Amino acid sequence: MASHVYIDRIGEHVGESVTVKGWLANRRSSGKIHFLVVRDGTGFLQVVMGKKDVDEATFARADHLSQESAVIITGTVRADERAKGGYEMIATGMEVVSEAHDFPITPKEHGVDFLMDRRHLWIRAERQTAILRVRHEVINAIRDFFNGEGFTLADTPIFTPAACEGTTTLFPVQYFEDTTAYLTQSGQLYNEANAMALGKVYTFGPTFRAEKSKTRRHLTEFWMVEPEMAYATLDDVISLAERLVASVVGRVLDRRQKELKVLERDTSKLENVKAPFPRLHYDQAAKILIEKGLPFEVGGDLGGTDETVLSEQFDRPVCVTHYPAAVKAFYMKPDPAQPDRALCVDVLAPEGYGEIIGGGQRLDDYDLLVERIKAHGLPMEAFEWYLDLRRYGSVPHGGFGMGVERCVSWICGLEHVRETIPYPRMLYRLYP
Amino acid sequence: MASHVYIDRIGEHVGESVTVKGWLANRRSSGKIHFLVVRDGTGFLQVVMGKKDVDEATFARADHLSQESAVIITGTVRADERAKGGYEMIATGMEVVSEAHDFPITPKEHGVDFLMDRRHLWIRAERQTAILRVRHEVINAIRDFFNGEGFTLADTPIFTPAACEGTTTLFPVQYFEDTTAYLTQSGQLYNEANAMALGKVYTFGPTFRAEKSKTRRHLTEFWMVEPEMAYATLDDVISLAERLVASVVGRVLDRRQKELKVLERDTSKLENVKAPFPRLHYDQAAKILIEKGLPFEVGGDLGGTDETVLSEQFDRPVCVTHYPAAVKAFYMKPDPAQPDRALCVDVLAPEGYGEIIGGGQRLDDYDLLVERIKAHGLPMEAFEWYLDLRRYGSVPHGGFGMGVERCVSWICGLEHVRETIPYPRMLYRLYP
Repeated sequence: MASHVYIDRIGEHVGESVTVKGWLANRRSSGKIHFLVVRDGTGFLQVVMGKKDVDEATFARADHLSQESAVIITGTVRADERAKGGYEMIATGMEVVSEAHDFPITPKEHGVDFLMDRRHLWIRAERQTAILRVRHEVINAIRDFFNGEGFTLADTPIFTPAACEGTTTLFPVQYFEDTTAYLTQSGQLYNEANAMALGKVYTFGPTFRAEKSKTRRHLTEFWMVEPEMAYATLDDVISLAERLVASVVGRVLDRRQKELKVLERDTSKLENVKAPFPRLHYDQAAKILIEKGLPFEVGGDLGGTDETVLSEQFDRPVCVTHYPAAVKAFYMKPDPAQPDRALCVDVLAPEGYGEIIGGGQRLDDYDLLVERIKAHGLPMEAFEWYLDLRRYGSVPHGGFGMGVERCVSWICGLEHVRETIPYPRMLYRLYP
Repeated sequence: MASHVYIDRIGEHVGESVTVKGWLANRRSSGKIHFLVVRDGTGFLQVVMGKKDVDEATFARADHLSQESAVIITGTVRADERAKGGYEMIATGMEVVSEAHDFPITPKEHGVDFLMDRRHLWIRAERQTAILRVRHEVINAIRDFFNGEGFTLADTPIFTPAACEGTTTLFPVQYFEDTTAYLTQSGQLYNEANAMALGKVYTFGPTFRAEKSKTRRHLTEFWMVEPEMAYATLDDVISLAERLVASVVGRVLDRRQKELKVLERDTSKLENVKAPFPRLHYDQAAKILIEKGLPFEVGGDLGGTDETVLSEQFDRPVCVTHYPAAVKAFYMKPDPAQPDRALCVDVLAPEGYGEIIGGGQRLDDYDLLVERIKAHGLPMEAFEWYLDLRRYGSVPHGGFGMGVERCVSWICGLEHVRETIPYPRMLYRLYP
């Protein structure tokens, strides 16, 4: 019996008789020959089935087989430059495992809501599998980067007793009878404790924001990687961010050309993503925005449009630093040279994709941190453990968070983050 | 200026003057020499500070420096077989970054509650960092294994609209004004959809069970890896599980001897963990339990004690198969040869650590699945999308889930899973 091979490795079996196990993605016929496009999760393969190459019943069945029917096809692999992927199969036999009737997602156009309601089936589409494989590559590239730089993965909790940055965007969970837990918005505070124990750490998991935003950049559940380093300054943080982004983009370019082609991504724009990235002080950013005629108020945070306009000025990501401390989180360290500014950095992706990274150096002074917690009206008792990090061996330290979905969206060149994760969760989307 | 090096790489700098940035873990003095044990997150290093080698103020300060004070020490690296790790440093200078006063976790014994309340500080202890580094290695070994076998990482959602296996152990989340979401207990159902799209997939993330158990094996928030394969049988699933476990244990043995030594782990028991593992039909398992005099009821599920007793019969993990379908989840495929049995497998770790893997072949027949959903009293409408997987191109498929914390607990030889994750969440534990 011919051995089972996956389509992405079929090129290693030219001239051999092998078996492919998959689903019928498409077919057409010229009477004496059926052209079956079979997918098996690793790729799409054209199978040529000649009337004389298979028995009569098989040939007849193939002529009526419906989209997404499960099929096991045996045949000989042939190199063919004209074929998608460079290979095709000449069928010698076919077993129908199960027939699908009226698969709802046909090659015609469908509306987004229709597709999102059928996300569990939509992900079988060539474009969607390409995006999900880029996501897989991005995540693995991130992990390999940090592991290679000597970071230790230290998971931070999903259930947290208190808010890290305000309570309006928290999801509450009933934790047994009489306790409320909140789903994490960021592992950062715990990350800081982990960095004091393990030196250089990262946490990588789902985070949650109950934002009522319906923009193309927001999900309620999204994955974030957050590195944190003891004995680090803002410069170390920026340098790490640059190397990470360049490494991830380089790896996708290196290993996922096939997928980027399916997505019709202009890869020349990704080729530019090399460290170092341009750096822009907040004041310079403000100047650009005002010159461009945007209604930007100096002293305020950057909005989505501001980020888009700034990012369009550069051919690679840009690092915006030194935001006003007032618009940033309580744990940011003020710049000693300009105490109303935070030692922070946001990395904006090019092509208008906006912020993909936010981070900076953390406030390591006990008294100042207490002052900030009070000024932000946060409950002191919830932060006692966090204050311990300043009581016992406080050191300069910093890190950042990078959102996976925004990163994938940019690298794939997508309109909306909803296609970057198998089952996106949004304001009005909890199914399937 | 001497360059900054991490302690785990200090052996590459013998004879050189380098700088270590860390915290004082311990010290003793013989009057003319201080012996300072410094930790930097990557390891512990003995620093020898002679009175004649540093200035007077530095020497005096080192004599009164308290545990966990942050220090930057410069000195010459020397190989010394008697020293922990094989190297020590002869100090030539020291900068105190910050002093810690009365660090609460001293070398004396502390109670578990005391330590758990200070988990953010407890993780600095040598034993805890060793466990967390083994956890890091286990997680990376799992990911490398699946990536190497051609699996695609496809994240399943944390917010789910319905229960996968009963509602009593679900955590409800208020999802905006008028919706309730539930935190995932398993990504499996979504994993099945992903396998039909991508062939071989895995999901790896936190899962949640509101179990009121206070056993040494339970956390409310724990990490689980779940592979799922299209066109796979129970045998494929068992084989995958064996290779995974053997690969993970082998990698920890290969790369984490230092940590296993800190944990005083008897590694000879881990050396036995080679595939294939013994397989035990449920009926054979029942026979053993009854022969051992346990009050085991044939037809029922295995309890914690049953698992412990069974696992103690073997020198490596054991695969128990063919449990009664009645005690397993609705989505398990019945054995065609014995329809009251499920085509399932639980892998029990040796040394009494119990179940680390549960999985099997899934029910791929539409009519039978509908029947099962009804028989289990589950809401049909919530499973419509899941039924689609049987409507459109159903194929034999299967997979399993492996709990990270139980795995780490076994490999490290721990008494309780609570030490296997930085911030364990349990019935009465949500802080820090």
